[in-house]
Amino acid sequence: MHLEDCESPVERSCCLIELDANDGGNYDIVNDVSSPAAGDCCSRQSSARHNWEMNYQEAAIYLQEGENNDKFFTHPKNAKALAAYLFAHNHLFYLMELTTALLLLLLSLCEAPAVPMLRLGIYVHATLELFALVVVVFELSMKMRWLGFHTYIRHKRTMVKTFVLFVQFIEAIVVLVRQTSHVRVTRALRCIFLVDCRYCGAVRRNLRQIFQSLPPFIDILALLLFFMVIFGILGFYLFSPNHSDPYFNTLENSLVNLFVLLTTSNFPDVMMPSYARNPWSCVFFIVYLSIELYFIMNLLLAVVFDTFNDIEKKKFKSLLLHKRTAIQHAYRLLITKQNPSGISFKHLEGLLRFYKPRMCARDRYLTFKALNQSNTPLVSLKDFYNFYEVVGLKWKAKRNREHWFDELPRTAFLIFKGINILVKSQAFQYAMYTVVAVNGIWILVETFMLQGGNFLPRDVPWSYIVFLTIYGVELLLKTTGLGPIEYLSSGWNFFDFLVTLFAFLGLLTLAFNMEPFYFIVVLRPIQLLRLFKLKKRYRNVLDTIFELFPRMASLGLTLLIFYYCFAIVGMEFFAGVVYPNCCNTSTVADSYRWLNHTVGNKTVVEEGYYYLNNFDNVLNSFVTLFELTVVNDWYIIMEGVTSETSHWSRLYFMTFYIVTMVVMTIIVAFILEAFVFRMNYMRKNQDSEEDNGIVLEKEIFKEEMVAVTELYKINCATSEVAQLQKIIVQMDKYEQPSMLFLGRRSRTKSDLSIKMYEEEIQEWYEEHSRKEEYQQRQEALPSSSNNPLKPLGLRQRSQTVI
Amino acid sequence: MHLEDCESPVERSCCLIELDANDGGNYDIVNDVSSPAAGDCCSRQSSARHNWEMNYQEAAIYLQEGENNDKFFTHPKNAKALAAYLFAHNHLFYLMELTTALLLLLLSLCEAPAVPMLRLGIYVHATLELFALVVVVFELSMKMRWLGFHTYIRHKRTMVKTFVLFVQFIEAIVVLVRQTSHVRVTRALRCIFLVDCRYCGAVRRNLRQIFQSLPPFIDILALLLFFMVIFGILGFYLFSPNHSDPYFNTLENSLVNLFVLLTTSNFPDVMMPSYARNPWSCVFFIVYLSIELYFIMNLLLAVVFDTFNDIEKKKFKSLLLHKRTAIQHAYRLLITKQNPSGISFKHLEGLLRFYKPRMCARDRYLTFKALNQSNTPLVSLKDFYNFYEVVGLKWKAKRNREHWFDELPRTAFLIFKGINILVKSQAFQYAMYTVVAVNGIWILVETFMLQGGNFLPRDVPWSYIVFLTIYGVELLLKTTGLGPIEYLSSGWNFFDFLVTLFAFLGLLTLAFNMEPFYFIVVLRPIQLLRLFKLKKRYRNVLDTIFELFPRMASLGLTLLIFYYCFAIVGMEFFAGVVYPNCCNTSTVADSYRWLNHTVGNKTVVEEGYYYLNNFDNVLNSFVTLFELTVVNDWYIIMEGVTSETSHWSRLYFMTFYIVTMVVMTIIVAFILEAFVFRMNYMRKNQDSEEDNGIVLEKEIFKEEMVAVTELYKINCATSEVAQLQKIIVQMDKYEQPSMLFLGRRSRTKSDLSIKMYEEEIQEWYEEHSRKEEYQQRQEALPSSSNNPLKPLGLRQRSQTVI
Repeated sequence: MHLEDCESPVERSCCLIELDANDGGNYDIVNDVSSPAAGDCCSRQSSARHNWEMNYQEAAIYLQEGENNDKFFTHPKNAKALAAYLFAHNHLFYLMELTTALLLLLLSLCEAPAVPMLRLGIYVHATLELFALVVVVFELSMKMRWLGFHTYIRHKRTMVKTFVLFVQFIEAIVVLVRQTSHVRVTRALRCIFLVDCRYCGAVRRNLRQIFQSLPPFIDILALLLFFMVIFGILGFYLFSPNHSDPYFNTLENSLVNLFVLLTTSNFPDVMMPSYARNPWSCVFFIVYLSIELYFIMNLLLAVVFDTFNDIEKKKFKSLLLHKRTAIQHAYRLLITKQNPSGISFKHLEGLLRFYKPRMCARDRYLTFKALNQSNTPLVSLKDFYNFYEVVGLKWKAKRNREHWFDELPRTAFLIFKGINILVKSQAFQYAMYTVVAVNGIWILVETFMLQGGNFLPRDVPWSYIVFLTIYGVELLLKTTGLGPIEYLSSGWNFFDFLVTLFAFLGLLTLAFNMEPFYFIVVLRPIQLLRLFKLKKRYRNVLDTIFELFPRMASLGLTLLIFYYCFAIVGMEFFAGVVYPNCCNTSTVADSYRWLNHTVGNKTVVEEGYYYLNNFDNVLNSFVTLFELTVVNDWYIIMEGVTSETSHWSRLYFMTFYIVTMVVMTIIVAFILEAFVFRMNYMRKNQDSEEDNGIVLEKEIFKEEMVAVTELYKINCATSEVAQLQKIIVQMDKYEQPSMLFLGRRSRTKSDLSIKMYEEEIQEWYEEHSRKEEYQQRQEALPSSSNNPLKPLGLRQRSQTVI
Repeated sequence: MHLEDCESPVERSCCLIELDANDGGNYDIVNDVSSPAAGDCCSRQSSARHNWEMNYQEAAIYLQEGENNDKFFTHPKNAKALAAYLFAHNHLFYLMELTTALLLLLLSLCEAPAVPMLRLGIYVHATLELFALVVVVFELSMKMRWLGFHTYIRHKRTMVKTFVLFVQFIEAIVVLVRQTSHVRVTRALRCIFLVDCRYCGAVRRNLRQIFQSLPPFIDILALLLFFMVIFGILGFYLFSPNHSDPYFNTLENSLVNLFVLLTTSNFPDVMMPSYARNPWSCVFFIVYLSIELYFIMNLLLAVVFDTFNDIEKKKFKSLLLHKRTAIQHAYRLLITKQNPSGISFKHLEGLLRFYKPRMCARDRYLTFKALNQSNTPLVSLKDFYNFYEVVGLKWKAKRNREHWFDELPRTAFLIFKGINILVKSQAFQYAMYTVVAVNGIWILVETFMLQGGNFLPRDVPWSYIVFLTIYGVELLLKTTGLGPIEYLSSGWNFFDFLVTLFAFLGLLTLAFNMEPFYFIVVLRPIQLLRLFKLKKRYRNVLDTIFELFPRMASLGLTLLIFYYCFAIVGMEFFAGVVYPNCCNTSTVADSYRWLNHTVGNKTVVEEGYYYLNNFDNVLNSFVTLFELTVVNDWYIIMEGVTSETSHWSRLYFMTFYIVTMVVMTIIVAFILEAFVFRMNYMRKNQDSEEDNGIVLEKEIFKEEMVAVTELYKINCATSEVAQLQKIIVQMDKYEQPSMLFLGRRSRTKSDLSIKMYEEEIQEWYEEHSRKEEYQQRQEALPSSSNNPLKPLGLRQRSQTVI
């Protein structure tokens, strides 16, 4: 039993409750208030407590910075900065940031050249823009208050944002004054507002990764272009004597066509004129494609993949060490002079109140217990290092009953038990798979028979009703047999549920002949995806897809941001340049043709359709850019636009190709890395095949509970007291001396990485602590007092108060 | 000093020479003949020696089997089998195999539908075929003699070959009898003769790897096709009401077009009719492409890459253990009862005579010394495990002089020394890079100015002469400064040399106006590749390319074998089906058009050229298949052929697409794996950056040399004695007591792997030896006497002899 946690001599007289938890261990709840009756001592403490509140808050901020990978030099330095920090760091503010950024981006729908239905007057959209920009100014001023002028200037991203804001402001005013939109290519820079949003951290990481992968990428690209130039010269010499060959008649054409050939877009065509003349000319093209497409392009992927792997590991390392440093900073703020060896529950509780305000009292105590592995009343630094792993756990009381129906009367219990056994049986599952398979074949055959007939029968087909009934019965059985919560906790069951729901909506659609919703009926085959549960590899692959999804989405968003930039530039330069029957001077005129023949007494429409791939508004531009991304026949779009503008337009298209190539290569590298990583992980841990996330079990004794409740009572936190008393009542009801709680969270990539790099991590830690020791020794010297990594402002103040 | 190597009491009297090599160590050359004078003892030994010869031969065969990864159950079991084995295992026989296989494959050039210039009468080519088949029969009969009937039947590949041979034989006879070629799709099976060649081991390995990667590939392919079917049904429901949309009017069209869309070949076109009607229909295509092309296709690559990595490692492991077993077998044949702890030089020499007949006596002794790390006169099993690493070394006497001109007179020496310093200086190199860069820009500008003019001037341009002179001078300086051997030993210098030579040939071409060779002039820009030496990453990449080359070539050959099969099938079914102005019923009729308009008084030729992509002979088929491999616009070829034949033709094209997709994915996976492996290796060994292959240094003392010479003298091997005496003379000349020799070989993938998996390899070895012990214990039991892994036939016989 220790005397602890009395921060100052003043409080010495009115502190200390000691409690013996009779769990055989020695959990002590140490408090600095002697008893609930000691009311007058509360007021004496208040100033000390206020200082502690500041420490809690700062520690919570450190931990947040650690989690979000924010650099510590942006840490608020004084009380004013702290207020600004708190103002700028909550979901309301983040949402405001996001909405203004989106508003600015969406404005391009309404500005000329606008989407026809959304066109707004110049007054309206310019005012909207100014309004959004003012909001951004407000956000930036808050940031400046928080960071201070010097840090603000040192923060590159913020400076770029400020500059872009300035330009946009001036342009918006110019538009408003001139009452007409000028060439505003700078609108492409609006993306920075979105990228800078707190919620777009993943996009920023992706962009950083793309830029880091660029140097090796550019090297190989140079090799690629070098061979292109060599073959360009060669092709020009070889094929320009052939006057029926339009692809190599000048060096420029030769180079452009070889660039397009790199994307295979013009492949057999570019070869045909020379091939028709001399069959051996195909050797030129085969060699070119073998070197460029099949070798160097794959080398590009290999180099990017390799860099990507390396970066991922480095990123993981720096993030891990950053978190560790954050934990160290927070720890230093939470220990007292009297007890430098650990954090007491009171202080951890104070920290958690700021770090996770929504966490309930019970969970805070469980977090304390989960962290505290040494069975002493204090959490040591070594235990505290697990903070991020433990704080994410979701706690639940472990139930004694196995099924939801255990407490029902005997007859009902037996019925539900029977359903439970049925639902869990192999036979039932395979029967359902058979039904799904039959349904699939049925749909296929049905569709095949429909050929050109009337697809939407007025009456609902009986097969549809039969299958839906079976699925409905299955759903019902599973829900009753497993209980709704257990049923929906499995992703696959949730998927089944959704699909059945959709099928039911489809039935309604059919029954009431609601035309616009008939696509729901068409979604029926999705149900077949259930069949893929059968094989382990598919489960793996689908699980991987599920895990990859957030990252894929952020990569998709990154791509969309590039699209936006290119769409704006495209609109400014190429809006309205392609139209039906344009581009008659180019080789691709056919694709832009739109003719109304009259053959006999029938009008035959000859459509090339390519005039639809234009830059007339943002939406069209996005579709056009997607077509350029897919690459096939992109040269038709390029040549069309080029023939109506100038040769330099090709630069736009080629740049876009290279940019999407970079992003796509990164996406491929990412998928490869994630998949290979997971497979390696599974190979390493073949025993623990079923992976239910991370689970931790903790037991709480009634005495501990009572002590914690007392603590809250003193602090007059009535809602928490009520919560805790409920648990105590429950314990009394079942006459248990203790209660078991399960903490659970899903496994993240970081957990996997920790397990994969186990050995290396120890080395990193050692290296890191060596560096830190060195730094501390440097700090001890008077010269290095402004080292940014040591605890800043607030800490120094609170130290003097204690 | 030990008494050793006396295999039998008979020889006991006439053995043993003991030699003290006075290098401080204790190398003993132990011989079983007492002195050169003991001539009569020679005859007594002859029978024993004959038995030893058998043992040497069998050990050499074991080692060869280990090296070539031949299974030990094909090991020759008796003297007759051994004779057949030796007959079937030499380069002459291998060449015969290869020539007959190539002859059979090349026959398809002359058989109908033949390449016009190479057409042969049916009599001629059928007779040629029969002749080649008879040769194959002979080869197989030799194999049967060597393997024995039972093993022959158990060897799958050989059985397949026999079956194909039988079919081909019958068909050839039928052709000869009927005097006309029938539909001979089975000709596609001729590839097996090539695949079975000894020289095509790499191709067999590739094929095995492809087949091993198939199961996961097929799984993901099923997922891909599943989504295709779902979207096919969806597309049919959504777009078939639009009558101007030819792509989705039936379910079959819908599926085929989505399959083609998977290859992006028909991309914007397939979307256009529905997009023109409702802009939102683009969502369908974007979702489809995102899921199929950008996600599942990459997943396919990831799965194959992962499997590939795994297989590579397993293959390396099994090969390593196989070699180890081979070494153990050989070792057991080379030790004597009296000296079970190692192999003496005499026996190793005997082995090497069979294993590497071209190795000279000096190198055999050096190999012995390199193997023998324990400084005893015997090579222990542990030392012998390094056999494969050591036997590949190329030995060279280490010269004392640094440069080739060290022995020239003083003045000449100073001149050459000056050149040497100049040539090795940074300034000289950068000056040359500048010249190359200027030359490159010059060529580019020159070509750009030529535009449509006369490219081949009658007189040689002065710039060409100037640059060539500079390169010539550089070549001369380097050759004289470094010496021709050192100069050409660097790959980069060799490349420079070749390029300069070509440029010189180009000059001759220009000077004498030799039209057909003018493409050499055009190759000039290749010289620019020298610039890539400048950056480390390029050197790495180019070195990797160089290392990958053999493997890439074998992968290319594998692809060609698939091409051959498909070409034969294509020719049998589609020869002559496409021609100018065919396919008028299909949607791609335009591409097959060939019209001769007369506009005004000019004839305008409107060519679609696609009729050139036909299956009219093997060469055309290969080009067409390459176009299908590149994928772009492949559906035009498919639709053309389909419209002239039947719907089922699509199966051919789709199968081909999937097969090439498999091979291409493997190629990508291979490049990825090789590159990432190399980069990881380099990261692990950052210190030893410059990699000159593996080098081993051994010193030989004159006394040893004399002893070895004596040994050969006894065995009456005069040529070897002469060789060795030359070395002794040389030692005498320079008055050296010893001479240093350097063994050198280039680093192989296997060396890298050994270093990468160092730790795991030890585990494998332990596991392997545990397994073997278990097996030996099993062998000790009488029941398992026919275990295929224990030493076979010959061994047992020779054991009884000893």
